[in-house]
Amino acid sequence: MQIPSQFRDAYENYLAGNQIHKSPENLYEPINYILSIGGKRMRPQLALWGCYCFNDDFSIAMPVAHAVEVFHNFSLMHDDIMDEAPLRRGKPAVHKKYDTNTAILSGDAMLLLSYDYLFSCEKGKYFKKLFPVFNQIAIEVCEGQQMDMNFETKEKVSLKEYLKMIELKTAALLGGAVRLGAIVGGAKQRDAKLMEKFARQMGIAFQIQDDILDTFGDPEKFGKKVGGDIVQNKKTYLFLTALKKSKGAIKKELLKWYSANTFNEQEKVAAVRKIFKELEVQKTALSLQNELIEKAYAELEKVNSSEEKKEGLKNWADKLVVREI
Amino acid sequence: MQIPSQFRDAYENYLAGNQIHKSPENLYEPINYILSIGGKRMRPQLALWGCYCFNDDFSIAMPVAHAVEVFHNFSLMHDDIMDEAPLRRGKPAVHKKYDTNTAILSGDAMLLLSYDYLFSCEKGKYFKKLFPVFNQIAIEVCEGQQMDMNFETKEKVSLKEYLKMIELKTAALLGGAVRLGAIVGGAKQRDAKLMEKFARQMGIAFQIQDDILDTFGDPEKFGKKVGGDIVQNKKTYLFLTALKKSKGAIKKELLKWYSANTFNEQEKVAAVRKIFKELEVQKTALSLQNELIEKAYAELEKVNSSEEKKEGLKNWADKLVVREI
Repeated sequence: MQIPSQFRDAYENYLAGNQIHKSPENLYEPINYILSIGGKRMRPQLALWGCYCFNDDFSIAMPVAHAVEVFHNFSLMHDDIMDEAPLRRGKPAVHKKYDTNTAILSGDAMLLLSYDYLFSCEKGKYFKKLFPVFNQIAIEVCEGQQMDMNFETKEKVSLKEYLKMIELKTAALLGGAVRLGAIVGGAKQRDAKLMEKFARQMGIAFQIQDDILDTFGDPEKFGKKVGGDIVQNKKTYLFLTALKKSKGAIKKELLKWYSANTFNEQEKVAAVRKIFKELEVQKTALSLQNELIEKAYAELEKVNSSEEKKEGLKNWADKLVVREI
Repeated sequence: MQIPSQFRDAYENYLAGNQIHKSPENLYEPINYILSIGGKRMRPQLALWGCYCFNDDFSIAMPVAHAVEVFHNFSLMHDDIMDEAPLRRGKPAVHKKYDTNTAILSGDAMLLLSYDYLFSCEKGKYFKKLFPVFNQIAIEVCEGQQMDMNFETKEKVSLKEYLKMIELKTAALLGGAVRLGAIVGGAKQRDAKLMEKFARQMGIAFQIQDDILDTFGDPEKFGKKVGGDIVQNKKTYLFLTALKKSKGAIKKELLKWYSANTFNEQEKVAAVRKIFKELEVQKTALSLQNELIEKAYAELEKVNSSEEKKEGLKNWADKLVVREI
C-alpha cells in the first residue's frame, strides 16, 4: 500500500493550491507563511486516514484535513507569542518575522478560516455533524494551553494533571482530525468515536515520547538539542515521575536544580539526567507509552472497517513511534 | 412600545444567567469580566430587533444575540492588546488587569464560544443559514482592524479607504447582528439582507458621529476627554476631509501638527480644531452622516414587516443619533 506518502503528497498539493491572495495582504501573508514552513502534517494525514477507512475516495475529506491543519497552525502562531518562542520549525516564528500584533490578528483570521474550510466540506452536507466535534476540540486545545501555562508557576502538578494537559493540548486535535475525517467518509458514530479514541491515545503516547527524546534522544538523530526541557524547568512526565519516585537526598537535589536561579546548563542537564537514570524514570515513561499505544491499537481493532485499511493506518502510526533511543 | 428597554433588560438577564464557571478558571474568568463591564449592548439589541420584526417571540434569538456580543468582546479584548489601550469602558482592559497572554488565550476561547452560542440557537435548526453570515462578518472585522492598523503608518489614506475600513471594523457586525436575528425570526432572505443594509449604513454613520464627538463633543455631555483623536494623529473622517479640502498654508499647518514629535496637547487640539472649523469639515461630516442615516431608513422602509415594528426600530436607532453637539 502506497497510502502514507500519497496522503501527505495529496495534502501538500491541496495546500499549495489554496494559498490566500486577499487584501489586506499583511493579514493573509503570515498565514501563507506559517502554513508553508512545513511540519509533519500529521493532522491532515489523520483526517484523510479517517475518511479512507470508510470511503476509498479520501479526497472528499481534504477541506476537513485543511481545516484541522489551519486550526493547528493558528494555535502555534498564538502559542509562540505566549511562550516567547523565537523559532518555529527552524524558521522565525510569525511574531518575530513580523510582529506580535500581526501574529495575534493573523492568528484570529486563521481560526475563522478554519471554520470556512470545515463548512466547505462536501458543500456543508456534514457541517452539523462536524461542527460540534471541531468546536469541542478547539476549546480543549485552549484549555490545554492554559493548563500548560499555569503549570509553570503551579507548585504541585500531579501526573494525572499532566496527562490531562497533554491530552487537551496535543492529543485532542489528533483524535479530532481522524474523527472528522471518518464522519466525512460516512462512518457510523460508534466507529468515528473509536477512531478518535485510537488517535487520542496515540497522541498522549507521542507527547510522552517527545518528553523522553528531549532528555534522552540522540541529538544527531532527532536534530534537536537535548535537555531543553530540563534547562527550562519544564514539568514533563519525566520530571513529575522522578519527583514522585524520589525521596530524601535525591529528591532534595532534584528540587535544588529545578529552583536554582543560576547554573551551568550542561552541568544541570547532566545532573538531572543522572537522577532520572537512577530512578529509572525513562523506563516508567516508556512503559506508559507502550501501554497507551497498545490501548490505541485495541480501539482501532474494534472499528468496523477493512482489516487492510486498519493495518495500513496502524503501520503508518507505528512508524512515528520511536522504539530505540 | 416599551421594547427598547425590554430588549436590553432581557439580554442583561440572559447574560447574567450565562456566566461561565469552568476549569481552568483563569481562562474563563476574564471572559466573565469583560462581558460584565457593560457597554451599550447595541449588537445584541439589534439581533433581538432583527428577530422581533418577523416574530413576536424575540427570545428565540437570544443565543444569536449573545454570540454576537461575545464575538464583539473577543475583538475588543484582542484590539486592546494591539492598540495598547489601558482602559476599556473606564475599567482596566483585560491585558492590563491580567496580562497579555491571558488576553490572547481568553480571547481565543471567546471566539470559539461565540460559535457555540450561534450553534445552540433553536437547537442548530438555523445554523447552516447563520454560519456563513457570521463567519463572513467575523473575517470582515479582522480585515477592518488590519486596515485600521495599516493606516497608522500609511502615508496616504483616501476617504474611500477610510469609509471601507469603518464599514468592516464596526458597521459590518451591526449589520450582521440584525441579519442573524432576522434569520432566526424567520425573515425571507431579501428582508434579512435589507435589515443588514439598514444597520450597516447606520453603523458607518455612528462611526462618523464618534469622530465628530471626539473632536467637537461636549466633554460633560459625553463623558469623554475631547481631542484624543487629534493628539494621537488619528486619520479620522474629519482629518481626511480637512486634508482634502485644504491647500497652501492651511494644509501645511495641518500636516505640521500631524507630524510634530513634541507639542503641547491643548495647543495642538485648539489649533487643529480651528483649522477644521475654517474648512467646515464638521459640516461635511454631519451631512454625510445624515445622508447615511436617510439611506439606512430607506432600506428599512423596504422590509416586509409591520409598520409599527419598523417604526419602533427606527425610533430606537434614532435615539442613538446625536443631532446637537
